Order: sequence, then C-alpha cells, then structure tokens
Amino acid sequence: MNPRPILKLSQFLNSGNKLFQRDISTARQSYGAEGGRNFGRVFADYAIFKGKAALSVAPVLPSFSKMDSGYTKVDRRGVIMLTFRPAIGERKYDSEKKQLFALSVTEVGSFISLGPGDSCEFFHDPLMQSRDAGQVRKTLSIKPHTDGYFISLTVANNILKTNERLTVPVSTAEFAVMRAAFSYALPHIMGWAHSTNQVLDDNVSRDSLKVHTQAAASEWDR
Amino acid sequence: MNPRPILKLSQFLNSGNKLFQRDISTARQSYGAEGGRNFGRVFADYAIFKGKAALSVAPVLPSFSKMDSGYTKVDRRGVIMLTFRPAIGERKYDSEKKQLFALSVTEVGSFISLGPGDSCEFFHDPLMQSRDAGQVRKTLSIKPHTDGYFISLTVANNILKTNERLTVPVSTAEFAVMRAAFSYALPHIMGWAHSTNQVLDDNVSRDSLKVHTQAAASEWDR
Amino acid sequence: MNPRPILKLSQFLNSGNKLFQRDISTARQSYGAEGGRNFGRVFADYAIFKGKAALSVAPVLPSFSKMDSGYTKVDRRGVIMLTFRPAIGERKYDSEKKQLFALSVTEVGSFISLGPGDSCEFFHDPLMQSRDAGQVRKTLSIKPHTDGYFISLTVANNILKTNERLTVPVSTAEFAVMRAAFSYALPHIMGWAHSTNQVLDDNVSRDSLKVHTQAAASEWDR
Amino acid sequence: MNPRPILKLSQFLNSGNKLFQRDISTARQSYGAEGGRNFGRVFADYAIFKGKAALSVAPVLPSFSKMDSGYTKVDRRGVIMLTFRPAIGERKYDSEKKQLFALSVTEVGSFISLGPGDSCEFFHDPLMQSRDAGQVRKTLSIKPHTDGYFISLTVANNILKTNERLTVPVSTAEFAVMRAAFSYALPHIMGWAHSTNQVLDDNVSRDSLKVHTQAAASEWDR
Repeated sequence: MNPRPILKLSQFLNSGNKLFQRDISTARQSYGAEGGRNFGRVFADYAIFKGKAALSVAPVLPSFSKMDSGYTKVDRRGVIMLTFRPAIGERKYDSEKKQLFALSVTEVGSFISLGPGDSCEFFHDPLMQSRDAGQVRKTLSIKPHTDGYFISLTVANNILKTNERLTVPVSTAEFAVMRAAFSYALPHIMGWAHSTNQVLDDNVSRDSLKVHTQAAASEWDR
Repeated sequence: MNPRPILKLSQFLNSGNKLFQRDISTARQSYGAEGGRNFGRVFADYAIFKGKAALSVAPVLPSFSKMDSGYTKVDRRGVIMLTFRPAIGERKYDSEKKQLFALSVTEVGSFISLGPGDSCEFFHDPLMQSRDAGQVRKTLSIKPHTDGYFISLTVANNILKTNERLTVPVSTAEFAVMRAAFSYALPHIMGWAHSTNQVLDDNVSRDSLKVHTQAAASEWDR
Repeated sequence: MNPRPILKLSQFLNSGNKLFQRDISTARQSYGAEGGRNFGRVFADYAIFKGKAALSVAPVLPSFSKMDSGYTKVDRRGVIMLTFRPAIGERKYDSEKKQLFALSVTEVGSFISLGPGDSCEFFHDPLMQSRDAGQVRKTLSIKPHTDGYFISLTVANNILKTNERLTVPVSTAEFAVMRAAFSYALPHIMGWAHSTNQVLDDNVSRDSLKVHTQAAASEWDR
Repeated sequence: MNPRPILKLSQFLNSGNKLFQRDISTARQSYGAEGGRNFGRVFADYAIFKGKAALSVAPVLPSFSKMDSGYTKVDRRGVIMLTFRPAIGERKYDSEKKQLFALSVTEVGSFISLGPGDSCEFFHDPLMQSRDAGQVRKTLSIKPHTDGYFISLTVANNILKTNERLTVPVSTAEFAVMRAAFSYALPHIMGWAHSTNQVLDDNVSRDSLKVHTQAAASEWDR
C-alpha cells in the first residue's frame, strides 16, 4: 500500500546516517555533491530532523568544460542544495514529497552575512524559461526566532493548484554549522577553489610567470 | 608500584610533544585523527596544561563507505575529541584516569559561535542505546571567566557510584586557537571537505556536467 | 559595422556563463586565473551585471621561480583582477572598452576589512616606472549605499585627454560573496597556500625536522 | 668596506620581491616556510617596508616524525616567523642586524583575536633551557595607533650589554592581511591541516571505519 520511500529517524540513530541510503539510490544524481579526491563522488549531507519536516543541505560543485585552447572554464556555477522532507509520523520523513531549493552563489552570500535578528527571502521560478513562467513560485524564507531561525520553503503551483509549505526550526548551533559549512563551500561552488589550487611543475611555473606579466601589463597599458 | 602511564610536562618541554607518546601507543586508535596526504595517520593534538588537569583536542575524521554504485558516502560523521587528564603532581598528568568527550558537528557549531560572556553545556549519555541508559551522564560545560573560559567535564556514574569533575581554565588566546582550529576542522568532520575537493579529469568533467544539469532540473521540475 | 565583442546578458542567462567565451578567447591571458589541480588553467570569474556596467572579479595566482638551490620562491605576488565593462544597450556589455584594476595583497586586506558604512579608495599609476609617470591615474573607490556598496573605477588619461568612470552598484549579498571569495583567495595570491600545502615523504620529513630545529635555533641564538 | 647584505627597496620595486634573494641564499634554512605541493620548499614572505625598519612574516610548518607503528606525529609545532630588519639608509635594510621572533600557535591565537584598540605583549627567553636563562629577553609588543598597530621587537641582552628596539607601524589593511594569513596558516602550523587532509583509498576507508567505531566506543565505555 505504501511503496514510497519512508525515512525513519530511529534507523538513522541506530546505523549512522544510512537514513538516506534508499533515497540516495533512487535520487542520487539529483542533489549529490560530486567529487572527492580519489574516490569518486562523495555524499555528505548535513541533515536536521525536526517535528514537522527534515532539512538536509549539501554542496553541488560547478561543472566545467574544456575549451579548444586546452583551458578549462566553469560552465555552470555550483549551488548549495536544500532538500526538505515532510514528516509522516514520528521520526519518519517522506522522500517522495521532498522539495528542493538550490541556493545560488549570491544567495549563499546573503545567507552567510545574515546578522542576528535579520531575515531574508529568495524567490525562484522553476519555469522561468518556458511559456509557463510565473505558474510555479518557490519562496525560501529565513526568519529569526529566539534560538536560531525558521527556514521555510513554500511552493505555490498554479497548474496543479497546490500550495505546500515546509518549515524547519534551526537552532543557533545548527545555523552556525550551516554558516561555516556554506562559507567553506562558497569558493568551491564558484570554481575559485579549482582555479587557485594549482599544481606547479616547471613548465606551468615558467608559463605562469609569463602570463602574469601580461596580466599586470594589461592594467598598466590602458 | 605505579605502572600506569604518567605524563610529565618537563618531558614535554624538553622533547617536543612526545609527552603523549606512551599514551598514544596504548590508546592510539581511540582518538587519533586519521589521515594525512601520503603518510598514514597523523597525530596533531592541541594540548593545554594547567594546574589541576590537561586538555587536549584533536579532530577525528568521518568514516566513509563505498556504495554498490561505486560512490562513497559518509558512514559516520567525525567529531572533535576532547581528552581531559587529571594532574597527579607538578606537571604530571594521569592518562589512566583520562576522560573523553566527543563534540558532534552541531556541538562544534555551538562552540565556535560562543560570544564573549556566553556559556553552554552539552550532555552525553554513553549508555543511551543500552538498558543502562541514564546511568552514566557526561556534562561538558563552557563558562566565561575574566580572561577566557573554564571548560569542565563532569562524569556522573550511578553504577560505579563515582562522580568526577575535571576543569581546565582556557585563556582567551587558547580559546581563539580552538575556535579557529574547530572552524577549520568543521567541514572536514562533516565530510564536506571530501565532497568538494574533487580531482577533475576529462571523464568526471563531462559526467559532472550531466549530473549538474539533472540537479538543476530537479529543482525546476517540481 | 560593429565587429567588436559585445556581451549579451540574455546569452548568459540561456547558456550558463558562456558570456565571456568570446572575450576569453581574445583576451584570455590578460586576467584569467591560472591553475587548477590537474586540468590546466581554470577560468572562474564572479560577474555582476548592472544597468550601466558589469564587474567581474577573479584571482590571479603568483608567479614562482626556481632558485639555483632547487627551492621555489614567489617571483611576483598574485592579485585579484577587477574587470569593468560599460553597458552598450540592454544587457550588452562592451569588452573593447573594458578597464582593469589589479588589487594587490594589501588592497585586498583593505577590502575584506571594510566595516558597514566604511569607504576606501586606491590609486594606481600604470606608467609609474616610465617617463610618463603621473599622466594616467586610475582610482578605484568603494562607497557604501543603503544596500551594499558602489564600486567605481575612474581612469584619467592626460595623454589621450580622456576621463572614464564606470560604476557598479554591488548589493550586500554580492559584496559578501566578494569578501568571502577574496578572503579565501588571499593566502593563494600571497603564495602562502603553496608554502603550507606540503607533500611529506620520509625525506622531507627528516629534512624539515632538521630545518625547523635551525629555525628555532635562529631565534634563540641571538 | 661593507660586505654585509644590504637590502634596497628600489631593487624590490623594480624586480618583484627579489629583495630577499641574497638574504635567502645565506640564511634560507633559518626561517623559510617549507613545503609546496610538488615543487620543494616555497618562500613566500609577506613584507612591510617602513621608514625605520622592515617586517616580514612567513609560516614555518611543523616537523613530523614517523613512529614505529607507521603512523606520523607532530614532533614540533610550526610557528609564524617574524623578521625585523633595521633601515640603514633610504629604503635599505640591514639583514645582518635582523632580529627574529617566532610566534607560537597560542601567540598566533592572541594575534588573530586582537580587537580594535587592543594591545598585547609576548616574552621569549631564548636561553631559557640553559644556565644563562634570563640573560636575554625578547619582547614583542603590538599596540594600536590611529590607523593600525605598532609592532615592536625589543631585545635586551645582559651578556652583550645591548638593548635593541625595532618598530614597524602596520596599517589597518596590512594588519588585516596578517590576520587573514595567520588564521589561514594556524591549522597548518598546528599540524591539523595534515591530519585532516587524508587521501582515502579502499583500505584506509575500511580501516577508518573500524577505528572510528573504537573512538566512539572509547567515550561511551567510561
């Protein structure tokens, strides 16, 4: 009767964070952080389980493409993916009804610079590029409470005539983890971590010397 | 008469931090930070020696497991391990009576967001999963003093009828080191450092492009 | 009639940040961040498109040279390169009229320590070393507004009798991204990221032990 | 008549930071930051040249040693080495009269947590372990001025009957660079960067799982 993936917190507590295992195996490619030095893609969600919903967050790295010149460029910036799952019983969360919100680089900038008592809201239109633009509206709101923030995702769908709202109260400590983790992830989802972590060999070294001289020259020449 | 491992600070001062060497060789696997690029596990405790007790702190990395798909996931999050040792003479600390407290990711979030004058307390029940739940209670408390914080660990054991309390006064400078080091370690014990430090090769690159497109699609499709 | 490279924001929105592709292929070496672990140079500009101009920022790594001893040293420190492009129509930016400003390590220090409401100004004379010193004057100014900062570049050229000013209003969130990204990049453009990310092998290990002892000795010997 | 190494700022301005080249070749091993991914030791001082003296700062990595078990441990923690050189003419600095001060991990903690208007002082006795303890006293003081801090090193030598004082006024921007660079370097000089940057392979992965379980067990078992 209920073949959909249900997540039980008790399972989670008994066996590490295997909670998402089933979920990952069906939806893995949708939000998993890619990468990891020499051992393929690594999944490392930070998850918060509360009474009415669970929130898990994870970085999604940028994608790169190789140019004809042999250089690499960021093709699409990464995001921090927020996944909300509604509770459907004590410590059980419904992955079929999960809702996603992908924080862009600039939205992450907003998030990490929130002062105590500040709030913010982000709006996404998933159908922006299509003829149904404006029919679905996602709103992520972050509002302060006495110990931390409420993080809510509202999805208003005019086509399906649905309006869902999932709210997770996040404690000050949990928010501090997110802020630190998002700050850490920011240069990675921008691609700066890739552009600055250079392996020098004699060739590159000589080359970069030359290039840099040109770079400086560019400013001076104008 | 006294075969137990005694640590002398004078030894420490004369020979680097070899102080823990004996201790490490008996208890190494219990709290050592695993890893290090190409040279096996690396032990790098930050230790504070005070009149009544010593406190040393070190990161413990998450454990990972490989999924059938070939991807890797965090199996158990890492911690920051705090080790307290009581003084048993001038600049000697007793490793046999050491007490451990493993700060979780969220507790580290609390720690690094402590403002001046703030205090906090964490409770662990080491027997939580057993029928003796509630019999042993560990309390870590962090309380401000004029120059820094008192960090205390209390272990109340109803079974052994013992109640131990170890307190280390931590200066503002030492606390700043911990805060900076814990902030640095946080994305590592969460597993985010592993999921973001990706070696790209042409394959992964093409692949991640595809995956990312799906990730974005996931948000938009709902 | 208009063969010069024009950048259209709509293109950007439709196809990731390919916007700079043409520009990159003509001017690549002038401001691209060099490096990336094992996949050649990586371009990862953070770009902000506003009504009158666009601003993109990217790190330029230091150049290194090998000494006769076999050691490596920083030959020229890196910079954060700021590139301004004037708008020439709705969401189109003119790369031919772009102006560059290379923030030095110390100027980056100013930038990341700006408090709310603070402002700062930097002056560069691109012809400083020549007999035309003083003829061209570049001024970068950062001034607060209600939600963020105005970042302006003025180039006064006495030789060409020109005076150009490009201003980009940067939101608080965008400024937070820059601050975080510049802070991340700082140890990389200084060369400290290279000097601290050491691969240890048994040799280096023994060697560094020796060296370090000498280092300490140096302080003590005086 | 004057064979001692004199550093001229003009040389520095004309040719990158080659200023220290001669100095490095005579004193290289005393304060150079060791390491760099695959290209030997890398020298990357951050130097500030002022009217009466120059100050350069650089990280010195910890030394490690291999234990019989095959594991690696920090043998001696790293430092941030401060080098002062007195001016001996316009933009010339005397390397023969340089004075060193090695900031320990905890002193770096003090440094990076200095608030605006705060000051601090550190005392080192280079002969502490010898029978001449107390004969030489080094004092590093950091005191606020209107735009930044004065950083002074005083070396009082009772044996040579000398008392030298070198002071460098450091601007707010330069201090921000130091604070950011020292914060970055801190986990490296502690050895935490080495203990957290682990290359996982299947073996280590399985092993770390086991180890971690024991780590957790250690806390719970008491």
